[in-house]
Amino acid sequence: MKTAKEIQDTVKELFEKESFIQQPKELYDPIDYTLALGGKRLRPTLLLASCEMFGGDICLAASAAVGIEVFHNFTLLHDDLMDKSPLRRGKETVYRRWNENIAILSGDTMFALAYRYFLRQWHPNMEAILKTFTETAIGVCDGQQYDMNFESQSDVSIADYMKMIELKTAILLAGAMKIGALYAEASEKDIDTLYRAGISIGLAFQLQDDLLDAYGDVAVFGKQTGTDIKDNKKTYLYLKALQDADSTQQQTLRQLFATTPENPEEKIKTVIGIYNQLNIKQKVEQEIDRLFDEGQKLINAISVGEERKTTLKQIINQLLGRKI
Amino acid sequence: MKTAKEIQDTVKELFEKESFIQQPKELYDPIDYTLALGGKRLRPTLLLASCEMFGGDICLAASAAVGIEVFHNFTLLHDDLMDKSPLRRGKETVYRRWNENIAILSGDTMFALAYRYFLRQWHPNMEAILKTFTETAIGVCDGQQYDMNFESQSDVSIADYMKMIELKTAILLAGAMKIGALYAEASEKDIDTLYRAGISIGLAFQLQDDLLDAYGDVAVFGKQTGTDIKDNKKTYLYLKALQDADSTQQQTLRQLFATTPENPEEKIKTVIGIYNQLNIKQKVEQEIDRLFDEGQKLINAISVGEERKTTLKQIINQLLGRKI
Repeated sequence: MKTAKEIQDTVKELFEKESFIQQPKELYDPIDYTLALGGKRLRPTLLLASCEMFGGDICLAASAAVGIEVFHNFTLLHDDLMDKSPLRRGKETVYRRWNENIAILSGDTMFALAYRYFLRQWHPNMEAILKTFTETAIGVCDGQQYDMNFESQSDVSIADYMKMIELKTAILLAGAMKIGALYAEASEKDIDTLYRAGISIGLAFQLQDDLLDAYGDVAVFGKQTGTDIKDNKKTYLYLKALQDADSTQQQTLRQLFATTPENPEEKIKTVIGIYNQLNIKQKVEQEIDRLFDEGQKLINAISVGEERKTTLKQIINQLLGRKI
Repeated sequence: MKTAKEIQDTVKELFEKESFIQQPKELYDPIDYTLALGGKRLRPTLLLASCEMFGGDICLAASAAVGIEVFHNFTLLHDDLMDKSPLRRGKETVYRRWNENIAILSGDTMFALAYRYFLRQWHPNMEAILKTFTETAIGVCDGQQYDMNFESQSDVSIADYMKMIELKTAILLAGAMKIGALYAEASEKDIDTLYRAGISIGLAFQLQDDLLDAYGDVAVFGKQTGTDIKDNKKTYLYLKALQDADSTQQQTLRQLFATTPENPEEKIKTVIGIYNQLNIKQKVEQEIDRLFDEGQKLINAISVGEERKTTLKQIINQLLGRKI
């Protein structure tokens, strides 16, 4: 049984030995650059850990693990272009470092490369694996569209938001776990339970991301605090605050989220002030706990010995900053 | 044995009964719009005709035929955005009618939908089918990059150009034919021969497109004559003319292809004048004939009865405006 550290090291090695450089270099240099930016490699790690949990051979799933990370990075590359984000992991985004056309085409190529990785190693469950991957990809696109719609939509509900982050974030984590289980030829029932656990954990992960953006320590999380507020993003925090606010607070929030001041310090301070009055931090933490517990319970219900679940649980705990 | 007309009608029906409308409509309306623009549906027609030639059941290949057309339309959608083309088949392009982000994301979604169609109907040859499709998609992206590179590259050779159009155009026609043959479980040797025929025919098809742009009748071909010259596109005609020109003609051509006059009539007239002096039309026609004959010979070498080849040959003849 591999430990979390061993799985993470395996993922790291997979990317170290993989070269993305080929001709024409104008197309593949940005791909290599994007994949060299690193990141937590969370999706391939979850994929391999899920395979391992069911006693599968992670060597068979290795190229799919690379594929899912290539796909994830493709979505980031195109999202950065659509959002006009200047930086990704502290480095210039592809459309800024090269240009928009290069960003479009190298992203498209990465999507095709993701399938090349999936197809590199055939498997008896390939139909289910590829259908899971493809339906996940379509769902992620749907989620990105809902996210863009929300920018100009004034009446976004918390339910709308949860649906959007389920598509944009949670289904890719859940899909990675399901694919790992498919490589291990787990039972349909266990795969379904694991997938639902992945959804809960993915939602918790996104809410935590929202929370850290407002309350995180920039030194610890590497992100500037308050960027979502600055960018008027309708996060869970904002929507929860709107829901719980009195009419004066509501008006202030709506007004502030319709402005983009040159110097956003004051705006961020006022918004967080309202969040504090409404105990938003605690309320979001409660929701994260609830989703995390839901995920844990589902994993507990999976029909493999408790000791086989340790690694996957450990990775999820790390992800959500929990003590094991 | 189905006739060319029957295959074309089958393809038409496939698209008539297929709905691309779903939620979120901001994402799927542009997809439905793009696929409703029509066009010759050449790639699915070649796919089904190739399947039919080898006695395969075209019902099994029907959803792959839809998939390859969805993929082709995705490439057009992103190409139009990259090239900033205002019109496609006489209608506004997606990025103009909606916006750039919608064009990026609906294109991405179409690429994923193409795989959904391929995966809808499983087949014993699925590994080869999906690998062929995926490698073709990567090649088409490579070809588009070379095409973009050529815009700023002064020393493009005819060989460079042929390599580019092989990737950008010919491999998708050849790939469609190969996939059709894979559905019919043709022999490896026949599939390889058919693929090579598809490459020759695809190259001939692109050279004919280049030729029609300079010499076509706008009433017949629906395209404005001379747009490649206006846009300074380094087509086969231009490169062949440069190769055969004396130093004065070369200088004139190079100078004219470095300008974009408000009113391009005079420029187009001068360039076509030089093409005429150098017999470029005849030389390109010769090359198209050579490629067409090469394709015909390869199809003749395929180990099925002559009568089974009639439909595919007829489609290719129509495509290249030949009498059968």
